[in-house]
Amino acid sequence: MNKPFKIGIAGLGTVGAGVVKILTKHADVISSRAGRDIEIIAVSARNKDVDRGVDLSGFYWVDDARDLANYDGLDAVIELIGGDSGIAAELVSSALDNSRHVVTANKALVAHHGYALAKKAEDNGVSLAYEAAVAGGIPIIKSMREGFAANEINAVYGILNGTCNYILTVMRESGRGFDEVLKDAQDLGYAEADPAFDIEGVDAAHKLCILTSIAFGVKPDFDALQNDGKIQGITKVNASDIAYATEFGYRIKLLGIARSIDGKIMQMVEPCLVPVSSPMGGVEDVYNAVYVDGDFVETSLLTGKGAGEGPTASSVVADIIDLARGFDIPTFGIEADKLKDASWVNMGETSSRYYLRFSVIDKAGVIADISSILKGQNISIESLSQRGHDEGRSVPIVIISHESKHAEMIKAVSLIKELESCTDNPCLMRIEEL
Amino acid sequence: MNKPFKIGIAGLGTVGAGVVKILTKHADVISSRAGRDIEIIAVSARNKDVDRGVDLSGFYWVDDARDLANYDGLDAVIELIGGDSGIAAELVSSALDNSRHVVTANKALVAHHGYALAKKAEDNGVSLAYEAAVAGGIPIIKSMREGFAANEINAVYGILNGTCNYILTVMRESGRGFDEVLKDAQDLGYAEADPAFDIEGVDAAHKLCILTSIAFGVKPDFDALQNDGKIQGITKVNASDIAYATEFGYRIKLLGIARSIDGKIMQMVEPCLVPVSSPMGGVEDVYNAVYVDGDFVETSLLTGKGAGEGPTASSVVADIIDLARGFDIPTFGIEADKLKDASWVNMGETSSRYYLRFSVIDKAGVIADISSILKGQNISIESLSQRGHDEGRSVPIVIISHESKHAEMIKAVSLIKELESCTDNPCLMRIEEL
Repeated sequence: MNKPFKIGIAGLGTVGAGVVKILTKHADVISSRAGRDIEIIAVSARNKDVDRGVDLSGFYWVDDARDLANYDGLDAVIELIGGDSGIAAELVSSALDNSRHVVTANKALVAHHGYALAKKAEDNGVSLAYEAAVAGGIPIIKSMREGFAANEINAVYGILNGTCNYILTVMRESGRGFDEVLKDAQDLGYAEADPAFDIEGVDAAHKLCILTSIAFGVKPDFDALQNDGKIQGITKVNASDIAYATEFGYRIKLLGIARSIDGKIMQMVEPCLVPVSSPMGGVEDVYNAVYVDGDFVETSLLTGKGAGEGPTASSVVADIIDLARGFDIPTFGIEADKLKDASWVNMGETSSRYYLRFSVIDKAGVIADISSILKGQNISIESLSQRGHDEGRSVPIVIISHESKHAEMIKAVSLIKELESCTDNPCLMRIEEL
Repeated sequence: MNKPFKIGIAGLGTVGAGVVKILTKHADVISSRAGRDIEIIAVSARNKDVDRGVDLSGFYWVDDARDLANYDGLDAVIELIGGDSGIAAELVSSALDNSRHVVTANKALVAHHGYALAKKAEDNGVSLAYEAAVAGGIPIIKSMREGFAANEINAVYGILNGTCNYILTVMRESGRGFDEVLKDAQDLGYAEADPAFDIEGVDAAHKLCILTSIAFGVKPDFDALQNDGKIQGITKVNASDIAYATEFGYRIKLLGIARSIDGKIMQMVEPCLVPVSSPMGGVEDVYNAVYVDGDFVETSLLTGKGAGEGPTASSVVADIIDLARGFDIPTFGIEADKLKDASWVNMGETSSRYYLRFSVIDKAGVIADISSILKGQNISIESLSQRGHDEGRSVPIVIISHESKHAEMIKAVSLIKELESCTDNPCLMRIEEL
């Protein structure tokens, strides 16, 4: 038997406690799988005196998590504090400096500082593992870095945020509005007290940024995603859009999309329409899914719980087992020095079918005005329907377009918005046929 | 740069040619991912003079594939010949004896001889890799051995044979019968000239046997599956069963099922009904899917192409890259000596909801007779419907049962069959709520 693999755990929230539970409950089988025992040596959290439902008496308690970075005898530090700066960032950085492997569930950290951390890990001959950072219990990092390693990846699409998927599912099933459903989700513990990161799409964008890096061999670049306004959340999706989408045979999903187009990368996080009968259309509630399109493997879809104690802790422990087995792999699948700076697609030049909804005063000539604007932008209409009839009052118009250029669609929307008869902000969403 | 990883390929059918294509087309990126070049040194196939659409001029040609087992300088032998005996078996065995890693897509070989080969690999300090043997392009072996390694697995369910799934899909869409659709599938290349292994469920059983071994840490035991009559194919599924299932909201899928029940393992391959709205119900055509239920990860579903040149070759090359990276893992996830002999569940003691269809002479009292038989076996009926009405002639009866004991259901079926009014062999299928 090889000598034990010794770890220290920083952060004992639900995931940290889950990791302790798994390593305790399954110690024997995990030892068989890892080829050696995995020993928790030390733990750290903000407050020692909290009952976390796990017995911590056998581990050293460390008050300042950062002290785990050079704690005597540790092979790996498990960072489950979170955040792209502060204690988590300091701990990860100095643990790598001290040649300790790091396992983390911290997507913000990897999305923001992944490149520098990857270099640091390599320079010190250790690994940075982060399966739990993306799509909870789905082994997507492993699948991308290893399982699909024979492929040139054409595209990765993901339902990457369980909170958003839950809210969209409940909105559709109940017909209720966003604010009301969000509040319920918070009461049920499916959404954070401060839900901004989830509902604004930032959390999904962190994850997408990581997937993009592995898929296309580029440096993770969260700023490129954020500064270009390519992150939209679900706060503006309203109940009627969901109902119309359903009528047309679609579901609205918050998708992270990364696609290679002529050597450049299109990358965005947006609510999109996907066919209800497609595999992704059936991914509901808190489930996540990642769809991968590779040139040889063709299409593959991985689905599972995107968050929660069990699934996330399961992925953290899988990383620990891999490290204990001696698996070593560059952070983003290839050496950091070989990661390229991405060239980003100009979104205006991309094409898609679109869902467009806005409200106009119900009077003669309005449809003609709109049709004329769309025609002027080379947008061909697959279906246009006025929902209800209420002479002289505001009624919604729903349009499904044929494949159209994004820039022309944006131009058309701005022209429609300027129409005197247009009474609200148009809602525009891509239709992704997955 | 590390020294190149040198391989020899035995078998140059679609998969073998695909492997050559990938390693040629993606040589640079694969070298980055593997951390070293991967070099094809030698190849072997039955006939040298076939145009396979790939340039083999740079490789040594070996007439007898078995000579690759000790071919000078090879790190790994890639066995793509197939079959659980003969040249493939001899080659794999002697390659391991000669301390060469082996990558294979040969499910029959692993299902039949996996335990002995696992021991041989360990004794010689090399790996036996077989991602491509189960579910083509889906990284299910990696997910089971590594991604879900933190879990005690409760169950694995799979749509494991693309040919069967294609036939069942076309039967449903077209309303046509099995024989006719099979013939079309053969003409289109989706079914072999000798389709027995596919349509009789043997191919799915080979794959299930491998998944069972990894999931539950037991020796693969194909005989246990076959000798106990736990393998049923799709040859007896008829068009009307598919239509009735659709009416009730189900799809018929050939499932491989392995489930842990009180420390024993239930294992079988059978056509089953799954809800059309479930993730597995939506897996159609040649797609495969594997559903995994683990105690921490909860449920995860992996979907992808189950066969074909690209997906299968993609998995073969992923294994080669893993080996070139130095990843080493016991064949079934734990050392061969730690694999247990499985205890199998007595199928009679399992429970399920059932779909039952048979034909009876349409006359007074028949329904009463059947109901009485079912009641006598403690089977409670969720729905019973006579399809059509034709006094004095044979009409089908379709029953959906509540949860019932298998032994009692079998007894009831045999009693119904003995009824004078029963005119054909009843069709009995499990309903699996996935």
